[in-house]
Amino acid sequence: MSLIYTIDLAGTFVFTVSGALAASDKKHHHDIFSVFFTGFITAIGGGTIRDVLLGAYPVVWINNMDYLLAIFAGVLFTLLFRRYIIRLYRTLSLFDTIGMAIYVVLGVQKSIAFDVNLGAAVILGMMSGIFGGVIRDTLLNEIPLIFRKELYATPCLLGAGLFVILHSLQVEEQLNFLLSVLFIILFRLFAAKYHWSFPRLQFREEADN
Amino acid sequence: MSLIYTIDLAGTFVFTVSGALAASDKKHHHDIFSVFFTGFITAIGGGTIRDVLLGAYPVVWINNMDYLLAIFAGVLFTLLFRRYIIRLYRTLSLFDTIGMAIYVVLGVQKSIAFDVNLGAAVILGMMSGIFGGVIRDTLLNEIPLIFRKELYATPCLLGAGLFVILHSLQVEEQLNFLLSVLFIILFRLFAAKYHWSFPRLQFREEADN
Amino acid sequence: MSLIYTIDLAGTFVFTVSGALAASDKKHHHDIFSVFFTGFITAIGGGTIRDVLLGAYPVVWINNMDYLLAIFAGVLFTLLFRRYIIRLYRTLSLFDTIGMAIYVVLGVQKSIAFDVNLGAAVILGMMSGIFGGVIRDTLLNEIPLIFRKELYATPCLLGAGLFVILHSLQVEEQLNFLLSVLFIILFRLFAAKYHWSFPRLQFREEADN
Repeated sequence: MSLIYTIDLAGTFVFTVSGALAASDKKHHHDIFSVFFTGFITAIGGGTIRDVLLGAYPVVWINNMDYLLAIFAGVLFTLLFRRYIIRLYRTLSLFDTIGMAIYVVLGVQKSIAFDVNLGAAVILGMMSGIFGGVIRDTLLNEIPLIFRKELYATPCLLGAGLFVILHSLQVEEQLNFLLSVLFIILFRLFAAKYHWSFPRLQFREEADN
Repeated sequence: MSLIYTIDLAGTFVFTVSGALAASDKKHHHDIFSVFFTGFITAIGGGTIRDVLLGAYPVVWINNMDYLLAIFAGVLFTLLFRRYIIRLYRTLSLFDTIGMAIYVVLGVQKSIAFDVNLGAAVILGMMSGIFGGVIRDTLLNEIPLIFRKELYATPCLLGAGLFVILHSLQVEEQLNFLLSVLFIILFRLFAAKYHWSFPRLQFREEADN
Repeated sequence: MSLIYTIDLAGTFVFTVSGALAASDKKHHHDIFSVFFTGFITAIGGGTIRDVLLGAYPVVWINNMDYLLAIFAGVLFTLLFRRYIIRLYRTLSLFDTIGMAIYVVLGVQKSIAFDVNLGAAVILGMMSGIFGGVIRDTLLNEIPLIFRKELYATPCLLGAGLFVILHSLQVEEQLNFLLSVLFIILFRLFAAKYHWSFPRLQFREEADN
């Protein structure tokens, strides 16, 4: 559990950095405040939405200062080393995937502990992983990534589903955690490498075009 | 009550279909995931916001699997029959109005049961009916319908107000339910047919233009 | 305390007016409903987010009709006197700053009463002051002011931090309230007058340009 807590805080740090950098691509004014704010929202958004929907008070970062410290460290790191971080984008993106996978599975675990139905546990797990980015993109007036890169949210949904199934089959909890996290990471890496996507749906008749 | 529950689930189904189709008009990539996600948000958004604002835990779809099943059915239906549904747009739109009217009045009822002030009950009722669509439009980076078609939200507000007034006058609950739902449906149908709208407000002096 | 309650309601009134007017700048259709809705969201958004994150139920405007009455008064005032108000923009903007400063410090106080960590109290105080406007801008499909005028949120953060520090030093509560509110108001006025801003951050190497 202590290992998972460490990984959780490391995930918060990495999410803050990648969140702050994502904002820096945009056309608008970018200063210390917006680095802090976009990093903060990206890091805590998903878990906060999950906790509010579960009624799991107090919301985690409000009670526990460690998360805010991890975010401050992430912001400081971004401000000091931003030119180097951008060159290491590929490495950062790997860490981001790892952090997201952990957030998803932790989110499913917490939801199950609150006795929700299993479909809701899967959805709340996915939201834990991706809603920080969704809120950030929405505030920045961008269409969230989940509507642009279709295999961004799907690995989270499937990995959350895998955890729920193995949990029902009474697979040992830590093994299940590891397998589900690995599944999400590998799925995303392969999807990115081989450009997997769902077929685009046709909603209009061909004659319309 | 069992009838209302059935209608509620039918409303969830219809909201899912119309939500998923609304997204398909947009310019962005549209695949299985986004059909599911936009349908889901449209169907549960309004009720979820209401429950979170009331502190009415557990939020309804988190506790009760039936709503998620109605959403899955709606997504499947949309994927299989989308070309036919689009031709039936007018029919669908009628169902959407019915579903919205029911959501509004159910929302007012639930709010009153939580002992909120009557102004808040009216606003929370309106939100139950329209905020799923508002959240969906916001995530898709569109200006929500409520700011474009002015008589979209107003019938919900007035119908919610009617329910509150009749409730204060101790009109029998089921009769009140029926009257308020019918009022919203008919108001919207007439507003659409005869293009009712509020006058556009002038905020600048004529000399400015 | 009665004085602060009066100021709080006056702040709600002013926020409603400035929120409704902010919406009127936009290109879209603007009618009675959208004046009401944007005023309402601006006035109650920040405090609502704070209360939901704290789990502080019932959310204040849901339980206490006074806030809704202040909002109705603000909407009515805007509709009747909008041409005059716009000429008084500078005065209105001063009231808006005062209202925001009070909201921020009231938000920090309430958060401290809920025993949150001090970093969270500062953030929740800032959110109380500015998130009504953030939600309004997001729904209207605008980039929130906080990402455009950089010294908009920073005075709120610093003033909230000042209150927390003086609170830890056991400065008398009402004196602390007054000092922190004044700090925010003066900081914003000077920032606006002398165009203070954070330096824009460079995230790309010069060679890129």
